[in-house]
Amino acid sequence: MARTRDPARFEARRGEILEAAAGCFIRRGFHQTGMQEICAAAGMSPGALYRYFDSKESIIEAIAEAEQRENATLLADLAESPDPVAGLEAVVEAVLLAYADPDEGRLAVEVLAEAARNPRVAEGFLRNAAELKAGVVAVLEAGQAEGAIDPGLAAAPAAEVLIALLDGLCGRSILDPEHDPHALLPTLRILIRRFLTAPA
Amino acid sequence: MARTRDPARFEARRGEILEAAAGCFIRRGFHQTGMQEICAAAGMSPGALYRYFDSKESIIEAIAEAEQRENATLLADLAESPDPVAGLEAVVEAVLLAYADPDEGRLAVEVLAEAARNPRVAEGFLRNAAELKAGVVAVLEAGQAEGAIDPGLAAAPAAEVLIALLDGLCGRSILDPEHDPHALLPTLRILIRRFLTAPA
Repeated sequence: MARTRDPARFEARRGEILEAAAGCFIRRGFHQTGMQEICAAAGMSPGALYRYFDSKESIIEAIAEAEQRENATLLADLAESPDPVAGLEAVVEAVLLAYADPDEGRLAVEVLAEAARNPRVAEGFLRNAAELKAGVVAVLEAGQAEGAIDPGLAAAPAAEVLIALLDGLCGRSILDPEHDPHALLPTLRILIRRFLTAPA
Repeated sequence: MARTRDPARFEARRGEILEAAAGCFIRRGFHQTGMQEICAAAGMSPGALYRYFDSKESIIEAIAEAEQRENATLLADLAESPDPVAGLEAVVEAVLLAYADPDEGRLAVEVLAEAARNPRVAEGFLRNAAELKAGVVAVLEAGQAEGAIDPGLAAAPAAEVLIALLDGLCGRSILDPEHDPHALLPTLRILIRRFLTAPA
């Protein structure tokens, strides 16, 4: 009889390790975290953990893969939205609320800082950023073709500016102890709608 | 005769050390950088360097003080601008172009990651962020009082959204190898103007 893995259990255990590792990265930073610390946080022996991840880099690659899947979901929601402006508002709202937890912002900043120094870490996140930008450009261009978005806007810079806004919002919980995502939503909706639709 | 310091020379030397330290933080990260490495990069002995900074924390505090002075200059320029919308456009333009150098973005992200973990490091940057937000709120409210900015906008969320946009723009050079700040400027001006002025 072959020793087989239960795929669902394997995935669930991987997810638990990722969560434990993310907690370590947030508290101590990527560089200061050792594999042993991740084992302790996940309640596993090094031998057991190495069946799932062979290095900290492979853990951060898995974080990039999770981001990729989240972006793909956001872009699919956008593509399905009958009104591209409302769709973009909903995406910004969803991301802002997900980052209401300062730990999410801390992890994103920690990962970005490591990506800025370590090309192996950067690779996955640069690919995600390029895919996200291409996806938002496509949504803007489709919206322009159907008249919902100002055709005078240059789609690539407009996508980059919207993504920069999202990125910046994700860090606000670190920099502003009074940051309240809900208080920003009406103003963000005004910004997105005015920016993307031509003044009457 | 007392041994006196030439204040201008002292300041210049401090600036050189800060620059050398920033280069180390960008290449290796704040935590992985030792005082000895900063000494080597600045071409100084530890004894000489300790006359200027007694710890890495005091170096990062000096980086926060430099940011505070830059913010004060931006806010003074804004207060002097006869047109608040054009003034905000100019500030966003100046910051975006300063961050065209990816090393500026890398340092900002590295410092933010450290601030997210280390309250002593966070202190100066949180104070700067609060001052910047208060300054932008004051500019928006003054613009609303004189009719240049839509009085229907809530000033505090509008300021926070504009600052988030700026923050996010500062990281784009890390995440997008094709990032071209000049290509974004016309679109950014459209965004700021449409956001801040009521549709006719």
